[in-house]
Amino acid sequence: MHRYRSHTCAALRKSDVGSTVRLSGWVHRVRDHGGVLFIDLRDHYGMTQVVADPDSPAFKTAETVRGEWVIRIDGTVKARTDETVNKNMPTGEIELYAREIEVLSAAKELPLPVFGEPDYPEDVRLKYRFLDLRRETLHRNIVKRTEIISAMRRGMSEIGFTEYTTPILTASSPEGARDFLVPSRIHPGAFYALPQAPQQYKQLLMVAGFDRYFQIAPCFRDEDPRADRLPGEFYQLDLEMSFVEQEDVWDTMEPMIRSVLTDFAGGKPVTEKFPRIPYDTAIRKYGSDKPDLRNPIEMQSVTEHFAGSGFKVFANMIASNPRVEVWAIPAKTGGSRAFCDRMNAWAQSQGQPGLGYIFWRKEGEKLEGAGPLAKNIGEERTEAIRTQLGLEDGDACFFVAGEPAKFYKFAGEARTKAGEELNLVDRDRFELCWIVDFPFYEWLDEEKRIDFAHNPFSMPQGGLEALNGDDPLSIKAYQYDMVCNGFEIASGSIRNQLPELMVKAFELTGKSRQEVEEQFGGLYRAFQYGAPPHGGMAFGIDRIVMLLVGAKNLREISLFPMNQQAQDLLMGAPSPATPTQLRELAIRPIPQKKD
Amino acid sequence: MHRYRSHTCAALRKSDVGSTVRLSGWVHRVRDHGGVLFIDLRDHYGMTQVVADPDSPAFKTAETVRGEWVIRIDGTVKARTDETVNKNMPTGEIELYAREIEVLSAAKELPLPVFGEPDYPEDVRLKYRFLDLRRETLHRNIVKRTEIISAMRRGMSEIGFTEYTTPILTASSPEGARDFLVPSRIHPGAFYALPQAPQQYKQLLMVAGFDRYFQIAPCFRDEDPRADRLPGEFYQLDLEMSFVEQEDVWDTMEPMIRSVLTDFAGGKPVTEKFPRIPYDTAIRKYGSDKPDLRNPIEMQSVTEHFAGSGFKVFANMIASNPRVEVWAIPAKTGGSRAFCDRMNAWAQSQGQPGLGYIFWRKEGEKLEGAGPLAKNIGEERTEAIRTQLGLEDGDACFFVAGEPAKFYKFAGEARTKAGEELNLVDRDRFELCWIVDFPFYEWLDEEKRIDFAHNPFSMPQGGLEALNGDDPLSIKAYQYDMVCNGFEIASGSIRNQLPELMVKAFELTGKSRQEVEEQFGGLYRAFQYGAPPHGGMAFGIDRIVMLLVGAKNLREISLFPMNQQAQDLLMGAPSPATPTQLRELAIRPIPQKKD
Repeated sequence: MHRYRSHTCAALRKSDVGSTVRLSGWVHRVRDHGGVLFIDLRDHYGMTQVVADPDSPAFKTAETVRGEWVIRIDGTVKARTDETVNKNMPTGEIELYAREIEVLSAAKELPLPVFGEPDYPEDVRLKYRFLDLRRETLHRNIVKRTEIISAMRRGMSEIGFTEYTTPILTASSPEGARDFLVPSRIHPGAFYALPQAPQQYKQLLMVAGFDRYFQIAPCFRDEDPRADRLPGEFYQLDLEMSFVEQEDVWDTMEPMIRSVLTDFAGGKPVTEKFPRIPYDTAIRKYGSDKPDLRNPIEMQSVTEHFAGSGFKVFANMIASNPRVEVWAIPAKTGGSRAFCDRMNAWAQSQGQPGLGYIFWRKEGEKLEGAGPLAKNIGEERTEAIRTQLGLEDGDACFFVAGEPAKFYKFAGEARTKAGEELNLVDRDRFELCWIVDFPFYEWLDEEKRIDFAHNPFSMPQGGLEALNGDDPLSIKAYQYDMVCNGFEIASGSIRNQLPELMVKAFELTGKSRQEVEEQFGGLYRAFQYGAPPHGGMAFGIDRIVMLLVGAKNLREISLFPMNQQAQDLLMGAPSPATPTQLRELAIRPIPQKKD
Repeated sequence: MHRYRSHTCAALRKSDVGSTVRLSGWVHRVRDHGGVLFIDLRDHYGMTQVVADPDSPAFKTAETVRGEWVIRIDGTVKARTDETVNKNMPTGEIELYAREIEVLSAAKELPLPVFGEPDYPEDVRLKYRFLDLRRETLHRNIVKRTEIISAMRRGMSEIGFTEYTTPILTASSPEGARDFLVPSRIHPGAFYALPQAPQQYKQLLMVAGFDRYFQIAPCFRDEDPRADRLPGEFYQLDLEMSFVEQEDVWDTMEPMIRSVLTDFAGGKPVTEKFPRIPYDTAIRKYGSDKPDLRNPIEMQSVTEHFAGSGFKVFANMIASNPRVEVWAIPAKTGGSRAFCDRMNAWAQSQGQPGLGYIFWRKEGEKLEGAGPLAKNIGEERTEAIRTQLGLEDGDACFFVAGEPAKFYKFAGEARTKAGEELNLVDRDRFELCWIVDFPFYEWLDEEKRIDFAHNPFSMPQGGLEALNGDDPLSIKAYQYDMVCNGFEIASGSIRNQLPELMVKAFELTGKSRQEVEEQFGGLYRAFQYGAPPHGGMAFGIDRIVMLLVGAKNLREISLFPMNQQAQDLLMGAPSPATPTQLRELAIRPIPQKKD
């Protein structure tokens, strides 16, 4: 017989009754039922109930074992009685009658229990991560994560992509977030950087003639800790294709991602055909470029109904500034004064002056718009608004006025708030869409200049002609996101592979040709030697896993995460370097003033 | 029709003749045959011959294109005439008659040509890696590399392993090679380290209850550049298993690796059943712990035949030191004075006093041992040696004498030299073996102390009892290598998961319990809370790929390698940090004296 086990803890069935078997695993818990000991023995695969009564030669040892000890048990498989069969366990029809127990590794008193999954302070759980990972939910999440990644790899391979690995020790990139730096020992004073993403390498791969690249790529950004991002490293499903337009990328990736989501959605429906929503439309309808489409509310402009109306606040704003609009947030089933007042109070708590509303109710046979706004604008305009939005008895509508660029975010939040409060959001589904036609540039108010709205690698729609046109801020990029349930899960673009167009695009942001050459030398040089049209995208793996397993916290889907202070409490990182290390690297820490 | 292509450059066949198609790709070369232009159009998938004659509307553009331009071609598929069919090309039965050519990206004059694969200086090739990668052999090697890694992933998955990703920003490890350090911005004066291998994490995974781990793992060692190792990062197929003995690891991994090698061996035979050779035996038979078993030579001790013999040099050595042995290196077909003298001269060139030999030849009917040694020891001993080694007419034997610990490496080199010079090595096969039972400790002559021969994580054979025994240097470890054609391709061990045994093992190397706790805190702590017996190994992916594609240089199987000065010439890394970066990281480079 094998030294440690003949079966895993998930393997034994009724058909094994009578067999002599050997199991090894962790003591999940021990119960004493009137002198008979029941040990739940756990391993990676599952759990088996072990029994030792005082007649068993293993009883003496069984009495000594405690939670999380690792033991080997030899015994006989017995059928459980009908009343003790556990239908929820794959091994629930049998139990193992212990004849011999060997303690392979005892455990000291546990700093946090594994059984029962109680709430425990984060720092204890991270320091003893190897115990925390034994918890059923975390163990299951981590295994699910590996399965999702494995399905992505399989899926990409099936549609003709090849996984290439790009360097981790590379050059600092002047764009985007802050780099992690790695001092070079051989070149004192010089530094490598860890890649924020393999963006430049994957484009170089296309220029090098490889056609369909993907990578489960580690990415590194030295950002201040945020609730929705772990410090340090994160993983992307990164991909790039040559000789494509943006529709090719969408048509290629949508079925693949849909298939992965469906496989792991646990039966929840996944959008059949992802709508392609222009950025401008998304902002106007949802007040967000990552709309949660499970929320059925769509905003509309109702400016005309307020222009010249008796509601002077809005009417005056509209009259004095042609950019002012009034947006309506229809709220089906929200037609009670109590709800409308609650929304109004919420808006004030968000720093807004308030949230105008109308709600509709039947007065006898008549459908009547209620609330101060309805009074001010009169019956006809109120009815026109109701008709435009398709609202009925018992519904409400909220209004936001001003320059859309300034209020759309708040309007989007109000849409979310109303949808959630009214339970209009169907949580048991995955609603996906593409957001397309993002602006190429954005205006930096503080610096009084334009900059790339996303990244400098995207192709502007309209090419050189557009860049030479009147208003750079009106240029769209071949730039797109994939959004699921209100989260951006992927982003991508068709790249600007034409060196002169690249120089011109940078020029408008104030960067000279020389700066482009210095800062993007590898790519800029490559584009001069035969660069194919290409594009791609990158999916945030952590976010997708969180959505699929329903986790709220990144630490519930990560194996060995750092804490919010960017420390690995288990391994003790970061830590001071030795004098020898510092000397070899030719760097010296600058002593910090204590606050 | 698609904007860029209806087919790839490898797709068109005779059955497509008459179709109108669109291809995009790189101009591999242009030939002018009496006014008719032939363009070899290349993409990731293959090559298609394009024809433009002066009647073609595309002729004018065709005349302008140059090597490595990216173009789109619309045209009609035509059958080639019988005499122009190219059987070596999948598309060799057709050619594309060009009707329209669009230049998608022109190329400047090339710093190195892609066509023809001429020898070019390494630094030009690395700076223009995107061009170098277009070369057929490099492109093929890189694709093959991805296929090998993909086959490994598939293979591991099929035998029940799960791929877990371990952190890249982690703690400095006090053992092994030099770490790359990453200064922490949030914790000034503290550093992360890039992992030399995921050793501690994979063991923690086992303690956390995951059963069969693997990872295509990036590893980082800041070592001085060596011919056989690229600076910076390299990849391992890393794996670990719980509840196993070493035989389980061997029985699990041998078929999987054999299958991968067979799939990519191009028909060359791969060892059916890998012999398991104890370290001591390997040293005695082959003079190496990574023997090339394609070389049939096996050494033997012939000490007894020289003890008390007339060859006084050896006889005196044997008499004066009981550790002295004489090893014979039998060399079939090496039985000529010219060859033996050449071997002797080679030995002298290696700093040895010379290489004694005997060779056998027929004198009439009589088989006679020739050379000075044979004369000195006489006919009877010469014949005894011949019989022991099974040598015949036309064979030779070389002799090395002294303390084996001091001469075995040279003896191994002499074995290799003889085998290669005599063409005894069958190069067209993959010969694999396991080397097992490595010593647990080694003696550090300079420091006058013992240290771990491999790593501190291995389980000593015999456990605590052995550690408390007489001679630590006689203890073996549950430690093993896999060797292919003379290269170590993998290494592993059963781990020491018992904290008290770990402390004792370190104690013999001079490290206190406190030092163990400080330096291996994560693992040491974990072992106290229920650690399963576990073991594993790690395969060097670069080496395996090199063996399978027959590459001699790591840069021929790596995508974006650094040069031997640890520089990325393409991206310009490492490079100076900005003052802002240095201030944020609270480090200051120490100015270096110019030599």
